[in-house]
Amino acid sequence: MTPKRSPCPIACTLDLVGDKWTLLVVRDLMLGRSYFREFAASPEGIATNILSDRLNRLVKHELAEKYPSHEQSGREAYRLTSKGRSLGRIVREIKEWGLANIQGTEARLKPQ
Amino acid sequence: MTPKRSPCPIACTLDLVGDKWTLLVVRDLMLGRSYFREFAASPEGIATNILSDRLNRLVKHELAEKYPSHEQSGREAYRLTSKGRSLGRIVREIKEWGLANIQGTEARLKPQ
Repeated sequence: MTPKRSPCPIACTLDLVGDKWTLLVVRDLMLGRSYFREFAASPEGIATNILSDRLNRLVKHELAEKYPSHEQSGREAYRLTSKGRSLGRIVREIKEWGLANIQGTEARLKPQ
Repeated sequence: MTPKRSPCPIACTLDLVGDKWTLLVVRDLMLGRSYFREFAASPEGIATNILSDRLNRLVKHELAEKYPSHEQSGREAYRLTSKGRSLGRIVREIKEWGLANIQGTEARLKPQ
């Protein structure tokens, strides 16, 4: 684990999810997506090496977990842990802020 | 302006504030700090070139504004715009999440 920048809970949370991609993967997990190829197919076009890194980081920090897929044997699926689901409050505030403040944004999909 | 990655309000908001530093500068502004040297003195130790960049971006996107300091003539001070203040809801959720989920975090200062 990287040393904390400070004991500030904002700084520590940003050390985990403060980048352009992690919360988009969390968004996709909130929307019920489970597979690497589903995250990769999101409209933002995340690069596969960044996606791998972010999924590994989410698992490492116990925000998401892998589980064996029943639908597609041999494939690993991902889902949020309860800790990861609790990021939903942050994600929803970010969504509401964007809708209210950035022209041309639209929320097409509802989180589960 | 960089082209949008998608119309998703989460992606668009992260394009503005999705990094490890921007919301820490917003936090400092919420706490009533106004001067470059005050932001630079925060415990996270932001590099001055990163701090300059983030302040310029906040001003460019009308989240913060410069104003002439009355206390220290000749120095520029920064303050949040109303759009910038509306980021407070996101910052507060991030703070609450950190306090609830990351050991060793503590909120020592209350936002104004």
